[in-house]
Amino acid sequence: MFRFDWDYILTQTVQVGGKLVILIIAFLIISPIAKRAISRLINKSTSNKNVSQARAITLEKLLINILSYTLIFVFIVMFFGIIDINIGPLLASAGVIGLAVAFGAQGLVSDIVTGFFILLEKQIDVGDYVTVAGYDGIVEEIGLRTTQIRGFDGTLHFVPNREISGVSNHSRGNMRALVDIGISYEDNIDQAIGVLKEICNEFENDERFVEGPDVLGVQSFGSSEVVLRVIGKTENMAQWGAERDIRKRIKEAFDAHNIDIPYPHQVNITKES
Amino acid sequence: MFRFDWDYILTQTVQVGGKLVILIIAFLIISPIAKRAISRLINKSTSNKNVSQARAITLEKLLINILSYTLIFVFIVMFFGIIDINIGPLLASAGVIGLAVAFGAQGLVSDIVTGFFILLEKQIDVGDYVTVAGYDGIVEEIGLRTTQIRGFDGTLHFVPNREISGVSNHSRGNMRALVDIGISYEDNIDQAIGVLKEICNEFENDERFVEGPDVLGVQSFGSSEVVLRVIGKTENMAQWGAERDIRKRIKEAFDAHNIDIPYPHQVNITKES
Amino acid sequence: MFRFDWDYILTQTVQVGGKLVILIIAFLIISPIAKRAISRLINKSTSNKNVSQARAITLEKLLINILSYTLIFVFIVMFFGIIDINIGPLLASAGVIGLAVAFGAQGLVSDIVTGFFILLEKQIDVGDYVTVAGYDGIVEEIGLRTTQIRGFDGTLHFVPNREISGVSNHSRGNMRALVDIGISYEDNIDQAIGVLKEICNEFENDERFVEGPDVLGVQSFGSSEVVLRVIGKTENMAQWGAERDIRKRIKEAFDAHNIDIPYPHQVNITKES
Amino acid sequence: MFRFDWDYILTQTVQVGGKLVILIIAFLIISPIAKRAISRLINKSTSNKNVSQARAITLEKLLINILSYTLIFVFIVMFFGIIDINIGPLLASAGVIGLAVAFGAQGLVSDIVTGFFILLEKQIDVGDYVTVAGYDGIVEEIGLRTTQIRGFDGTLHFVPNREISGVSNHSRGNMRALVDIGISYEDNIDQAIGVLKEICNEFENDERFVEGPDVLGVQSFGSSEVVLRVIGKTENMAQWGAERDIRKRIKEAFDAHNIDIPYPHQVNITKES
Amino acid sequence: MFRFDWDYILTQTVQVGGKLVILIIAFLIISPIAKRAISRLINKSTSNKNVSQARAITLEKLLINILSYTLIFVFIVMFFGIIDINIGPLLASAGVIGLAVAFGAQGLVSDIVTGFFILLEKQIDVGDYVTVAGYDGIVEEIGLRTTQIRGFDGTLHFVPNREISGVSNHSRGNMRALVDIGISYEDNIDQAIGVLKEICNEFENDERFVEGPDVLGVQSFGSSEVVLRVIGKTENMAQWGAERDIRKRIKEAFDAHNIDIPYPHQVNITKES
Amino acid sequence: MFRFDWDYILTQTVQVGGKLVILIIAFLIISPIAKRAISRLINKSTSNKNVSQARAITLEKLLINILSYTLIFVFIVMFFGIIDINIGPLLASAGVIGLAVAFGAQGLVSDIVTGFFILLEKQIDVGDYVTVAGYDGIVEEIGLRTTQIRGFDGTLHFVPNREISGVSNHSRGNMRALVDIGISYEDNIDQAIGVLKEICNEFENDERFVEGPDVLGVQSFGSSEVVLRVIGKTENMAQWGAERDIRKRIKEAFDAHNIDIPYPHQVNITKES
Amino acid sequence: MFRFDWDYILTQTVQVGGKLVILIIAFLIISPIAKRAISRLINKSTSNKNVSQARAITLEKLLINILSYTLIFVFIVMFFGIIDINIGPLLASAGVIGLAVAFGAQGLVSDIVTGFFILLEKQIDVGDYVTVAGYDGIVEEIGLRTTQIRGFDGTLHFVPNREISGVSNHSRGNMRALVDIGISYEDNIDQAIGVLKEICNEFENDERFVEGPDVLGVQSFGSSEVVLRVIGKTENMAQWGAERDIRKRIKEAFDAHNIDIPYPHQVNITKES
Repeated sequence: MFRFDWDYILTQTVQVGGKLVILIIAFLIISPIAKRAISRLINKSTSNKNVSQARAITLEKLLINILSYTLIFVFIVMFFGIIDINIGPLLASAGVIGLAVAFGAQGLVSDIVTGFFILLEKQIDVGDYVTVAGYDGIVEEIGLRTTQIRGFDGTLHFVPNREISGVSNHSRGNMRALVDIGISYEDNIDQAIGVLKEICNEFENDERFVEGPDVLGVQSFGSSEVVLRVIGKTENMAQWGAERDIRKRIKEAFDAHNIDIPYPHQVNITKES
Repeated sequence: MFRFDWDYILTQTVQVGGKLVILIIAFLIISPIAKRAISRLINKSTSNKNVSQARAITLEKLLINILSYTLIFVFIVMFFGIIDINIGPLLASAGVIGLAVAFGAQGLVSDIVTGFFILLEKQIDVGDYVTVAGYDGIVEEIGLRTTQIRGFDGTLHFVPNREISGVSNHSRGNMRALVDIGISYEDNIDQAIGVLKEICNEFENDERFVEGPDVLGVQSFGSSEVVLRVIGKTENMAQWGAERDIRKRIKEAFDAHNIDIPYPHQVNITKES
Repeated sequence: MFRFDWDYILTQTVQVGGKLVILIIAFLIISPIAKRAISRLINKSTSNKNVSQARAITLEKLLINILSYTLIFVFIVMFFGIIDINIGPLLASAGVIGLAVAFGAQGLVSDIVTGFFILLEKQIDVGDYVTVAGYDGIVEEIGLRTTQIRGFDGTLHFVPNREISGVSNHSRGNMRALVDIGISYEDNIDQAIGVLKEICNEFENDERFVEGPDVLGVQSFGSSEVVLRVIGKTENMAQWGAERDIRKRIKEAFDAHNIDIPYPHQVNITKES
Repeated sequence: MFRFDWDYILTQTVQVGGKLVILIIAFLIISPIAKRAISRLINKSTSNKNVSQARAITLEKLLINILSYTLIFVFIVMFFGIIDINIGPLLASAGVIGLAVAFGAQGLVSDIVTGFFILLEKQIDVGDYVTVAGYDGIVEEIGLRTTQIRGFDGTLHFVPNREISGVSNHSRGNMRALVDIGISYEDNIDQAIGVLKEICNEFENDERFVEGPDVLGVQSFGSSEVVLRVIGKTENMAQWGAERDIRKRIKEAFDAHNIDIPYPHQVNITKES
Repeated sequence: MFRFDWDYILTQTVQVGGKLVILIIAFLIISPIAKRAISRLINKSTSNKNVSQARAITLEKLLINILSYTLIFVFIVMFFGIIDINIGPLLASAGVIGLAVAFGAQGLVSDIVTGFFILLEKQIDVGDYVTVAGYDGIVEEIGLRTTQIRGFDGTLHFVPNREISGVSNHSRGNMRALVDIGISYEDNIDQAIGVLKEICNEFENDERFVEGPDVLGVQSFGSSEVVLRVIGKTENMAQWGAERDIRKRIKEAFDAHNIDIPYPHQVNITKES
Repeated sequence: MFRFDWDYILTQTVQVGGKLVILIIAFLIISPIAKRAISRLINKSTSNKNVSQARAITLEKLLINILSYTLIFVFIVMFFGIIDINIGPLLASAGVIGLAVAFGAQGLVSDIVTGFFILLEKQIDVGDYVTVAGYDGIVEEIGLRTTQIRGFDGTLHFVPNREISGVSNHSRGNMRALVDIGISYEDNIDQAIGVLKEICNEFENDERFVEGPDVLGVQSFGSSEVVLRVIGKTENMAQWGAERDIRKRIKEAFDAHNIDIPYPHQVNITKES
Repeated sequence: MFRFDWDYILTQTVQVGGKLVILIIAFLIISPIAKRAISRLINKSTSNKNVSQARAITLEKLLINILSYTLIFVFIVMFFGIIDINIGPLLASAGVIGLAVAFGAQGLVSDIVTGFFILLEKQIDVGDYVTVAGYDGIVEEIGLRTTQIRGFDGTLHFVPNREISGVSNHSRGNMRALVDIGISYEDNIDQAIGVLKEICNEFENDERFVEGPDVLGVQSFGSSEVVLRVIGKTENMAQWGAERDIRKRIKEAFDAHNIDIPYPHQVNITKES
């Protein structure tokens, strides 16, 4: 006669129930601890590095979200494991699909990991003038997946973060103003340097200059000119204007002192054919 | 004598049946919840970002399709697991094939993932003038797998989305009009700048210009000319026409003021052979 | 004494037999459903996109072939699983070989996946003038693995489909005819533009032109010439002939109006050595 | 007391024996079927594509060899599985080694797969003039692993097949003969085209030409010349000789008609320093 | 009647308890040993290589942190294993996620590994002038993930350590000062070398020079000049100033000795047109 | 009371012993067969391809070594499997390490595989003049891992075999001697070709030439010269000397016949500024 | 009542103990054998290749270290396996971490493998002048992970060994001295070659030359000069000095014999504008 083996069922139930209780308690303990750990981690990281409050909250939310989904997933997997519905094949096939997706979507993960560190390390801020991944312009938006850069010609570049291998940030400190100027081989180098020094003195009081422009000397011998170099340090983004003004002044001063900015020269030797 | 062990069969049947019931109930609960979650996710994502209704529906359909196939697959796998037909080897071999395909088809997954984000983040719209993956032109169609771009010479480019690493969208905002013009070293810079300023004033009322063109100053010293730069901001796609008109005006004004746009210069020194 | 345990054998047989029956029935149901699903899928995909009947059949055959082999393989694996000959080690070793092959042959899978989509999306047709993977020419044959392109110099290029990342199809719509012509700095721009406009008017009735050629204006300042641009839209493949004819007409008209197409200019300054 | 459990041993023996018999029968059935399938496949593939008999046999041999080794390997694995010597660890470790080798040797597999398709699709033949993987020359030998190409300077290039991504075969059909010739801006285009047309007529009866050479017209405006283009189609490998002869005739005809092939021009403007 | 099998439970408890005790003892022994091993390793590595105390402590902390997390993870896994909650599926799924992340985040691991060795091998120090990954400048900060380099134009470059394949450190030792100077073919080489030698003698007492500058001789024949080379070794970062001063002196001395730094030469042969 | 279950132990021992005996016999049979198979394989491969005896022995030794280590490894694994010490975890961990190493060391495997085929296919010999992996020179040593090439400037290049993708062997057959010579547009082409043909006749008896040099005709129109081409086939490595001698003869013959090798020409048009 | 089953425990203990004894004995036997094998291997490898004693010891130490750690690891794994604490999950999770690390750290393994072979094959020595991975200079230190190269400008390059694909060692044998010298088309080639031969004779007794410099003949026709080539073989590192001296002598001899080293020539044809 068919009879349920109540003993066996009861034992099983007690065992399974006990395991479930342990599991639930474990999760009730781990979940808040992990969340607090994340909060503390974020606080600590951000307080040391002057990260804005808003950004800290964004990062915290993101991490807690990831944590929650992971815990739910783990709970489900272990729950099925305990009530003995074999979830193995499911996981195995999920593995195959997961692998296929992992290959295709690794770029996405890579985007997010890189984006996370760009945010955390404050490599770029909105409004910075940067060069990343060959794109040049003003940062308009920094996202976890893409960064938007407005090129100087008005184009809006969407750059996936994974493409950003090295970041060149042109808005972090003073910039160099550099003017190379060629004088002819016939001109006197000392006189030219003298004129340039006078110009540099004029600009020393220009408030754009942090380190007044200086004359470095003979940078190189060109094919038709002796190249002199003037160098200085300016406020950020003021370098181009400063260079333009120095260039104009040099031209005027050289004209006044009769110093030649030479055209290309060639020596012609005439031969009868 | 051979006899069926009805007890065993009954127990088994009850057990299997119970598991099946739990499984089916689980799916009946999960399926609508997951679908609603997707709908809500799409709604939330799209309402924040002004995505068109049609696009939102496309994305929702795609995601619900993927979900359905996944759930059906999971159900089949778990069903076989419960009725104890060993589906393990099948999955294992599927894994090998899946791996082989995954290697070959990761490009496809990559296409779709990238296409999904291009749609979601509205990086490009049909009709935009963009530069992606080295192709330059007007977007004709954005698909999950390929984007079609009509080059300015009439060629239709099919670009797999995975090739699109960075998107340069030239139709998002005002564009820069930039004209570099060389004057000879003998000409007076101030006079030339003055002429250019007058031209800029003329164009200030041109409705194509959002920020009236300005003269920046001495951009560089060329080998035979002093390069001056005029810069402005125009309505999108009006930059080329504006540049052409400025160029024509400059030529005319320079002719009128006797300012030279110099040919290449060379100093010749004659020597006897 | 040795005796067969008939009971056990019978039970086993019944069990195995039952499983086999379920398996066979499952396959008998799945197989035609899957085939019909493919047919419907192809019909739906192709009816929307004007794919030729022949191509639709090719794709359908290919997919049903793949399906059949997969089902047979699955059936064999599950059959061995049921009659309890351990096929696991076989599969494991097949996995190792499969992996080795997968690495080497992923190019092949990649070829077929790409080829499939080129066919399905009708990116190229036989007879189209295309640029793919750096090869330029007329498509002679599109295969699942390789595409054959006849270069304009007569060379036959075999391009593996995986190499085809972006397709530039020059036979999908009207093409641009573009002629840049330089006039000397001494010539009058307005006059030259007038002459070019007259020529454009002549060509407006040329049936090769879809959008009659227009004069855009001053495209750029060259070192010795002012560059003017004429642009138009022509029937496909007629752009080169149209450009040649415009060029010839411009030369004749400029000769008639005494407008110079300038040689490179140079200003020579003579200096004593 | 120690006693053999003959019952157990007998049952085992019968079971194992039964499985072995099934296994052997399975192989005896599969082996010839698979071989015949290969033969038929090859026949079908090759009869459609005019593959030479010798090549068909080579391919058939190769495939049957691979099949044989695979079947022997499978048989051994399953045999050990049945007589219950655990071959699992062996396979696992073989897997690790196999993986290490697979990484290193995937190039080899890749060579063979590509070589197989180059043979099957008849992309190149011995004696063809081809460009593959940057090497240019006459094919001397096509192997499964390497292809040997004799460069025109006498060098023998060994090209691993995997390097052959796209094949440019210059020996499949007629080739283009193309001569660009510049005339001076002062010469009359119509006269020059007339002269060229006469020359083309002379060559029309040249048996090397499949499509008699034609004058296309004004190809471009060079800095010092108007470029005219003559184009034709010749027998394979005759294009260079034909081009050389056309060039010689053009020079002679231009000399006779006083049409100038111009040297680079420059306009010199003399200025006092 | 249902009854707990206390015997079984007790046995189990004793067994599990015993294993737990062994496990805990094992960890109590391993943990301090491992920590001490790390300390000793760091001490040994650093004492040999003059690593600063602060850096040694940073490395030690990092390694001990990694160790702690690993030990905790291992403990948890083994703990669950002992109390028989099947953690296998959890780990398997963790594996799939881990794999997906591993693909995306391998760059991060790569950053840290490279950063670790850059720190340990003291390849760069803060303040060094280096060229890494195409970026050129002064090191501002060396981190485990990114290195910050201040370019000479003021830009701050963030370089992920993984991009740093080869490090060129320009601040490790004396630098070369090199001046190439061309004299005309008409000048006497011996005289020019004599003049250069005198200049070199003047600079020999310059304290910037570690190895006084020397004249090497005729470096090459240019198209218009005979190139002579002067070479020397200077204090680090003094090379550019030294080169500039040498250049100025050479120009002055050549002027004084009437030695020509020649312009490009050309022989003109006049022919009637 | 504690008692050994001698029956069980005996049965086990007999079983294990039986398996061991089978295992050992299997290896005793397989080992010599495999070795002989290798010998025969090598003999067959080498006898067909004129491989030197020494090289055949090297290859045979290598393969037998690999075989021996593999068999020993397999034997150990199976031995442990039979005496029931669970070697699974060991293999699993070996797998992880193996994987880590495999990633790092795949280059090594790749070197050996490529080296093996370079030896087997006799792509290069010691003393050959080859171009591999961008290195150009005489082969000094061919190893399984690296190939040593002596550049013509005396440098010794160590090239890892994996870098050798395509081999260009310049010592396998006759080489081409090619001389391009420009004559002026004013000279008579027929006369120049006549002179060149005479020179070719002189060289026809030169024993360096395998195919006497021939004049091909007008190769191209340069900007200032008509380019004629002379081509021939010489003994290996004699091409440069032959070319030098032809060049010298052409110069002398052209001087004698008053045929000009023209300098660059330019037409100068003088304009008043 | 609860009672320990002493029989079972005893049997277990005996079994486990027996296995442990076998294990320990196995390791006591394998360890010294493996160490001796390594020593012998190193001795054999190094005695054949003149490796210095110090280097041999370094390699031996390294290999024995690796061996020790591997044996300890294997021992621990098998020990846990025998005392039946399930170490499987631990290993599995280690595998996942290991994989993640393997991806990131494969560069490190690759460094060491390459470094090992560079040391073993003596490809470079400290003090050699080499070109590796695009860096050029004198080797300062060869490590297992990085090689330090001192550039000629004083920069210290740290090159990870994995970057070293091909090694160009410029310090292994005599070097070539090569001087190309152009003479004018008007000069007599035979006379110039005669002068060069005299110079070569002068240098034949120069002890820097191993193979006295020789005149090869007419290397090429330049646009304005006939290029002659002088070639020789010198002691290592003496090539540059030798070349400089030859150049100086040629200039002097040509001056003395009135042979021209020509400037670029141009034929000017004057035309009226």
